[in-house]
Amino acid sequence: MGASRVAVRSYGTLRRCVSPRALPLQFARNIRTFAAAAVSPPSKAVVYEQHGSPDQIVSIVDLPPEEIKVNDVCVRMLASPINPSDINRMEGVYPVRPQVPAVAGYEGVGEVHSLGSGVCNLAVGDWVIPSPPSFGTWQTYIVKEETSWHKIRKDIPMEYAATVTVNPLTALRMLEDFVELTSGDSIVQNGATSIVGQCIIQLARIKGISNINVIRDRPGSEEVKEKLKKLGADAVYTESQLSVKNVKSVLSEIPEPLLGFNCIGGDSASLVLRLLRQGGTMLTYGGMAKKPVIVSTSSFIFKDLTLRGFWLQKWMTTDKAKDCRTMIDYLLSLVQCGKLKYEMEMVPFTDFNLALDKALGKLGSKPKQIIKF
Amino acid sequence: MGASRVAVRSYGTLRRCVSPRALPLQFARNIRTFAAAAVSPPSKAVVYEQHGSPDQIVSIVDLPPEEIKVNDVCVRMLASPINPSDINRMEGVYPVRPQVPAVAGYEGVGEVHSLGSGVCNLAVGDWVIPSPPSFGTWQTYIVKEETSWHKIRKDIPMEYAATVTVNPLTALRMLEDFVELTSGDSIVQNGATSIVGQCIIQLARIKGISNINVIRDRPGSEEVKEKLKKLGADAVYTESQLSVKNVKSVLSEIPEPLLGFNCIGGDSASLVLRLLRQGGTMLTYGGMAKKPVIVSTSSFIFKDLTLRGFWLQKWMTTDKAKDCRTMIDYLLSLVQCGKLKYEMEMVPFTDFNLALDKALGKLGSKPKQIIKF
Repeated sequence: MGASRVAVRSYGTLRRCVSPRALPLQFARNIRTFAAAAVSPPSKAVVYEQHGSPDQIVSIVDLPPEEIKVNDVCVRMLASPINPSDINRMEGVYPVRPQVPAVAGYEGVGEVHSLGSGVCNLAVGDWVIPSPPSFGTWQTYIVKEETSWHKIRKDIPMEYAATVTVNPLTALRMLEDFVELTSGDSIVQNGATSIVGQCIIQLARIKGISNINVIRDRPGSEEVKEKLKKLGADAVYTESQLSVKNVKSVLSEIPEPLLGFNCIGGDSASLVLRLLRQGGTMLTYGGMAKKPVIVSTSSFIFKDLTLRGFWLQKWMTTDKAKDCRTMIDYLLSLVQCGKLKYEMEMVPFTDFNLALDKALGKLGSKPKQIIKF
Repeated sequence: MGASRVAVRSYGTLRRCVSPRALPLQFARNIRTFAAAAVSPPSKAVVYEQHGSPDQIVSIVDLPPEEIKVNDVCVRMLASPINPSDINRMEGVYPVRPQVPAVAGYEGVGEVHSLGSGVCNLAVGDWVIPSPPSFGTWQTYIVKEETSWHKIRKDIPMEYAATVTVNPLTALRMLEDFVELTSGDSIVQNGATSIVGQCIIQLARIKGISNINVIRDRPGSEEVKEKLKKLGADAVYTESQLSVKNVKSVLSEIPEPLLGFNCIGGDSASLVLRLLRQGGTMLTYGGMAKKPVIVSTSSFIFKDLTLRGFWLQKWMTTDKAKDCRTMIDYLLSLVQCGKLKYEMEMVPFTDFNLALDKALGKLGSKPKQIIKF
């Protein structure tokens, strides 16, 4: 929380007398306040002052330098993704979100730029991520306490470091924390082309778990199937392929899945429910179709299904999250040895508006957009 | 399973050559088969030969005497309820059901009529219930092994003994086995006028758990509210009373419930979901409205709800059921001391067709129908 709080606070103070776009003019006065202290460079940030459609409300603003206190670390941000939850926070529909005005973004990676005199375990040039993730990562410089940063390996592409927390960790926890799966079991998921979906395929494969994947009926679905199979998918079906009376007949040799993942809702969630084994569990972690999950009475009583949800931001506040840095290191080690990969598109910060339009789906289906600062 | 299996088997054998209604004519020949053995009296039974609308398919048939083997007990049935699940089994829509032709019924109480020579722990005149419950209780005499019968107290009305397993035990297990509730917590349920509903109110009260009850909008709902409050309901609302934006504002001093029970489905299930606390659980054990449960994505992700089902017939096959006779004794002790009661209507076996019509809802809303043999 530190970075965004500090950044937004100083912005909040300043905006009493100036409009955001006039901020640079205030630098001199502002820096005088910190005359005796080390300060960060000014930060260029994606800021929103009210909730609404992201492309209508964000502006890129120069924030004044921040004081670097004795235990603080100033980080030059390298890259940060545009996740659907970032968009929901800007829209104001996310239940936990920063107060406006706010700097957007929730995860990312940066390089240590300068240190307070009490910092022992980080050095200039180290790669770090905010861990747990925190608001306000879409900016060029962030100052927060040493303990807020987790040092990570540098031998991986920065876009993986920037995205390791929200999506891969969601996939890992959903696979580990709800149903005991052992080699030979299987899982089923919709939205298999999402980053979480791609991670589930690969993490399941590592555990010896077969995976059944459902994708939407779209032009190019044969290509998508091939891509997912290359990642390790055991079976990929379009929704229409599964619109048959005896849906389980399509599974052939794959055992009926014990665990299902739903990030779509509506009919697509119903397909996951139909494919699940007696006594199975479906986890909902997204609702891309903006339609509810519909469950028959007999699914509960006779099929004994359990339906639950997963939300990483909530998980981060629980005891289980105390080992999250170890989990991050594990996921990055998989990236390093080529066992975890997913499609992303790096976009320079100067093209932020284009990246945002792509993330908003205005230009059709695009890979995950990663802002490169 | 013993009684119904034996009864249906002999009926099944006979029906190769005679129609059910001709069975009495075959007694002499049949009894000759068992010449050297003790036999039960002939049994008058509610039999169906195919699945369909119960009032179209059942007939009352005289079944021939059964052999009473050394460890068998012959029980003269006293009373047996018509439960919704009995109707579903006759309709053929229940996933586990006896093969046709079958004697209907699943629970009931009887009096020991005669014993095999190896029976040690039961005596003529004892009251017994089939435990676990088993198919084929709608008949006047049942023969099964001693171990299939559970001797119960005789100082309670027979209609409670006849009905203690399916509904009160469902209420008890749902309250005990899913969420840890302690005094001061609360639960919410729809279908509060059902027998399970009435039991939940009283069992919750005994545990110091507040209970919030939802009933349908029907003429006489004020009277229903008073009845349920007399049983121990803390709050009773009609569905329309809860159709307000801020549903939780109606709860006033009752804490938000951790656990909810749904036996209706559709909008009524949605009300239970809305009333549940963050992290709450809803158990579905019925679907009287024949409409599915509809759940928003955010209920799973942000409200962290868990949805599950409960089915007593499945539970009876699990390890947990090994103590079911102790639970039955506990429930009957509550009946004896006036802490567990619910509305029933006793109907003589000669009026079976009327009782069935009432149970099928043909004569409006009626209390649980109990056949008195």
